[in-house]
Amino acid sequence: MLRTHTCGELNSLNIGETVTLSGWIHRNRDLGGMTFIDLRDRYGITQIAFNMDVDEVLCASARKLGREFVIQIVGNVVERSSKNNKIPTGEIEIKADKLNILNEAKTPPFTIEEKTDGGDELRMKYRYLDIRRQNILDNLLLRHQASKETRKYLDSKGFLEVETPCLIKSTPEGARDFMVPSRLNKHQFYALPQSPQTFKQLLMVGGVDKYYQIVKCFRDEDLRSDRQPEFTQIDCEMSFVDQEDILNTFEGLTRHLLKKIKNVDLKEFPRLTFDEAMKYYGSDKPDIRFGMELVDLTKLCQGNNFKVFDDSEFIVGIRVPDGAAFSRKKLDKLTDFVKSPQIGAKGLVYCKYNEDGSSKSNIDKFYDESFKKGWAKEANCNKGDLLLIMSGEKESTRKAMGTLRIHIADELGLRDPKVFAPLWVIDFPLLEWDSETKRFHAMHHPFTSPKKEDMKNLDSDPASVRANAYDLVLNGNEIGGGSIRIHDKKIQEVMFKHLGFTENEAKEQFGFLMEAFEYGAPPHGGVAFGFDRLCAILGGEESIRDFIAFPKNNSGRDVMIDSPSKIDAQQLQELNIILNK
Amino acid sequence: MLRTHTCGELNSLNIGETVTLSGWIHRNRDLGGMTFIDLRDRYGITQIAFNMDVDEVLCASARKLGREFVIQIVGNVVERSSKNNKIPTGEIEIKADKLNILNEAKTPPFTIEEKTDGGDELRMKYRYLDIRRQNILDNLLLRHQASKETRKYLDSKGFLEVETPCLIKSTPEGARDFMVPSRLNKHQFYALPQSPQTFKQLLMVGGVDKYYQIVKCFRDEDLRSDRQPEFTQIDCEMSFVDQEDILNTFEGLTRHLLKKIKNVDLKEFPRLTFDEAMKYYGSDKPDIRFGMELVDLTKLCQGNNFKVFDDSEFIVGIRVPDGAAFSRKKLDKLTDFVKSPQIGAKGLVYCKYNEDGSSKSNIDKFYDESFKKGWAKEANCNKGDLLLIMSGEKESTRKAMGTLRIHIADELGLRDPKVFAPLWVIDFPLLEWDSETKRFHAMHHPFTSPKKEDMKNLDSDPASVRANAYDLVLNGNEIGGGSIRIHDKKIQEVMFKHLGFTENEAKEQFGFLMEAFEYGAPPHGGVAFGFDRLCAILGGEESIRDFIAFPKNNSGRDVMIDSPSKIDAQQLQELNIILNK
Repeated sequence: MLRTHTCGELNSLNIGETVTLSGWIHRNRDLGGMTFIDLRDRYGITQIAFNMDVDEVLCASARKLGREFVIQIVGNVVERSSKNNKIPTGEIEIKADKLNILNEAKTPPFTIEEKTDGGDELRMKYRYLDIRRQNILDNLLLRHQASKETRKYLDSKGFLEVETPCLIKSTPEGARDFMVPSRLNKHQFYALPQSPQTFKQLLMVGGVDKYYQIVKCFRDEDLRSDRQPEFTQIDCEMSFVDQEDILNTFEGLTRHLLKKIKNVDLKEFPRLTFDEAMKYYGSDKPDIRFGMELVDLTKLCQGNNFKVFDDSEFIVGIRVPDGAAFSRKKLDKLTDFVKSPQIGAKGLVYCKYNEDGSSKSNIDKFYDESFKKGWAKEANCNKGDLLLIMSGEKESTRKAMGTLRIHIADELGLRDPKVFAPLWVIDFPLLEWDSETKRFHAMHHPFTSPKKEDMKNLDSDPASVRANAYDLVLNGNEIGGGSIRIHDKKIQEVMFKHLGFTENEAKEQFGFLMEAFEYGAPPHGGVAFGFDRLCAILGGEESIRDFIAFPKNNSGRDVMIDSPSKIDAQQLQELNIILNK
Repeated sequence: MLRTHTCGELNSLNIGETVTLSGWIHRNRDLGGMTFIDLRDRYGITQIAFNMDVDEVLCASARKLGREFVIQIVGNVVERSSKNNKIPTGEIEIKADKLNILNEAKTPPFTIEEKTDGGDELRMKYRYLDIRRQNILDNLLLRHQASKETRKYLDSKGFLEVETPCLIKSTPEGARDFMVPSRLNKHQFYALPQSPQTFKQLLMVGGVDKYYQIVKCFRDEDLRSDRQPEFTQIDCEMSFVDQEDILNTFEGLTRHLLKKIKNVDLKEFPRLTFDEAMKYYGSDKPDIRFGMELVDLTKLCQGNNFKVFDDSEFIVGIRVPDGAAFSRKKLDKLTDFVKSPQIGAKGLVYCKYNEDGSSKSNIDKFYDESFKKGWAKEANCNKGDLLLIMSGEKESTRKAMGTLRIHIADELGLRDPKVFAPLWVIDFPLLEWDSETKRFHAMHHPFTSPKKEDMKNLDSDPASVRANAYDLVLNGNEIGGGSIRIHDKKIQEVMFKHLGFTENEAKEQFGFLMEAFEYGAPPHGGVAFGFDRLCAILGGEESIRDFIAFPKNNSGRDVMIDSPSKIDAQQLQELNIILNK
């Protein structure tokens, strides 16, 4: 080794030892008679001291070293005169005897500090320098620990890690697949997996009983901010289970991770049905770190000749604690927010319940004090609170109010990244009507089983049928989701029919799975966690990008290696494809 | 859970308990008054007993159940009258009270037994049934354990598991890349990684210090038997190390795996230089479980008017212990073997040293007893042994003899899969002359560093320059290989020049790496293990295929899901490509 110790481990117990350290020059301070170098590696920073009086030549050469030079130092561990109790090595420094330059460095394009001066694109282009920053390195360490603890927990529960293939078959259902032309099989293509869904079900048919994998998945989507074309999921499946077993097992995993990584003890996770989540939070992934639940004000508001309300299917309010103090300007901004295309509402009604007992609304000419008192009672508004009201079509109004709720909570600082509030959302609808294609889509995926008691309505009222499907939600993010699968070929056929597959289409795309189900498929179900997102939430951040070592930008480009890129004519010819002008 | 216990855990301590089991019907035996079902799951087999006298209806329905039906049983654990001490549950059986058919099963196309009647293609088509066979399941368990122990060892040494991207950039060097057309970046392509080589080097530049990953890699090669287009490697890299540190660390990993998985204690690994390996074994991946080293007989054979030998650059022999008893037919077969296109030798000389002290060779008319005694002395041949001799161009003759050595050892049963004989092969040549393209290729890859003491010959005699490169060989298979990398931009430029890259080509393909090296790259090196092969050797088998859950066949096809496959016109259009007629 080019070192006897790392830059993070020496302390007063090592005083008197001769050591060799290697690392990067984090700082170089020339104080005239003395030169101090902060030497950095993954493990920490150690101060190296050069003294003009002791060795002028050595000290002079140390002074010339720039930031991020890679050097090797031999020297003695001595007590530091001015100690730094902020770092573990702060009690000592190294009196340098020898200096060896292992590699020179150009001045980096941004500072290697937690708060860097580098913008996002520059950091991505020089990601290898970005990773030297302690906070990015900490993110990679957190990710490592999260995958390690995930494996430890699942191993202890008897799960087998099985690798499923990456070169699979395209299934037009769902998002777009990335395609891989086959050279050996002319004009045929592999697809990269959007998830190992069918393979994990086949592993259950194969008797693996409990499967997991921390696995790369791929989606060729039009990228939104904070989406990656390749992402990682914790993928799990179990046999001979019902929904309760899955919820308990993965509630256990989540609790284990929070304990090991954040030292947080979580209580039993609350459960909300999909209907309840929509009713109280206007979202199927509610953030329950704070209140501000939605309140149905339809009855209390209608029939008073305010046409906007009278014409609305649904009227909903939320109480903003201490919001009566909001300025006119702030309320206007909130109105602009709900009118933005993202939400698309027509307007926002407010009612301030002032500290002096009076109230003030922008619809005072339609509603007198007694009405406003009724609303306050229904929404639990006290003196000093603000009530916000929206109206319109039921589902979209709820969703709009749900989005406004999150927006205001962000502004009020109610979404503390150090607080972790998980919950299960259960009883999702099986099917979702797509008004564009005029047909039902599977809300989770086509293999999700309907609830037994709702099966009878599958033909007469498909929209009312609930699924054995569940999402794990953490701080307003869906971090995991899954279902009890269909293991009966006949029910699977009914499902495909309702999803608009012809018998041939179903056979062509999922024939192997349907056939497998004929050879003794056990009852089974599973879950998949978005690992990038989970790491970001554990790290207390909104963006997943800095929890991925080498992420892509919003156009799916890796700006560091400049990929994707053009390929040469011979490669195209070998793949039997030509570019479409 | 649809069970209280698995089919592998009940024993005499559970007698008297009421239990619920779920699993597959492995066997169903109707003995008239009694019916016995062997119920199977991942964990074992438990016998279920149905009695006509106790419950005629239940027993009758049990009789009708076919192989591989999935059932749930409720019953009492009772002592078995005829115990089976071959299985852990052999002391008990379940007196069935309730029977619930969870799923029916068609008769499988092959028997679900260790020795199945299914051929390879059939097994692959119904891989989910194949996995139910205990030996395949055991392979998956072994693989799980191997990855778990790999992680445990590397974690304990401070390695960070970091995921590197799958959608990267094509580099024409090396094998062919699989390409992925980008929809969002018109006419541009991603490539799937042949290894994370450049990324792990960038992680070292980024200060990650010790990296590992168990990772899928891809090569679009013309498939030979037992090659897979996607395969898994244990990929590692360390900073501030020299070759010795790498060898020690990964010798430790190999020792750890053999101990944990096979309970084998390995001694210190022998080390052979590449030159020694070629000299004594005619192979850079020698199987040292047995002797039969190559012996140079050039001097002892030449100058005796046997033209074949006199015209040869090199004459080499191996002693076959107890081979004097080989029949004429067997010797003819060996001669055919070395003449096969795979080896391409012109012939084979033998000399039998008979038990009675006489000797017999097929070139007796050129060489008398004294010569043959000289050979015997040189090759350590005793009475009863056989000496085989080949001649020709030095390198190819050595390789041919190395191949013959393995062939004979296989026939003699000298390659015991339960014996593990690892070694390091070191000091590989840096460059390899390609007579086809008339230029040097990097023997490992273009980032491998030359030995410091050989650097001076890089211009004058490039073929003589040795690399800081090493392979870990186990039982005649290269299971790992790596090198100390070049971390100096100038040396890297010299290397690219010798590999025939123009400055522009080097910049276009590896510009980001060259640039990274300007910002303070630490000395670093690493290794990659072929994980599929490693598992197969640990499992004592020659083929990797049954250590992969869902392997592809020799044409790169997954015959189970029927992939690759044609894709629809819309997909092609979105990717801006058309098929070349």
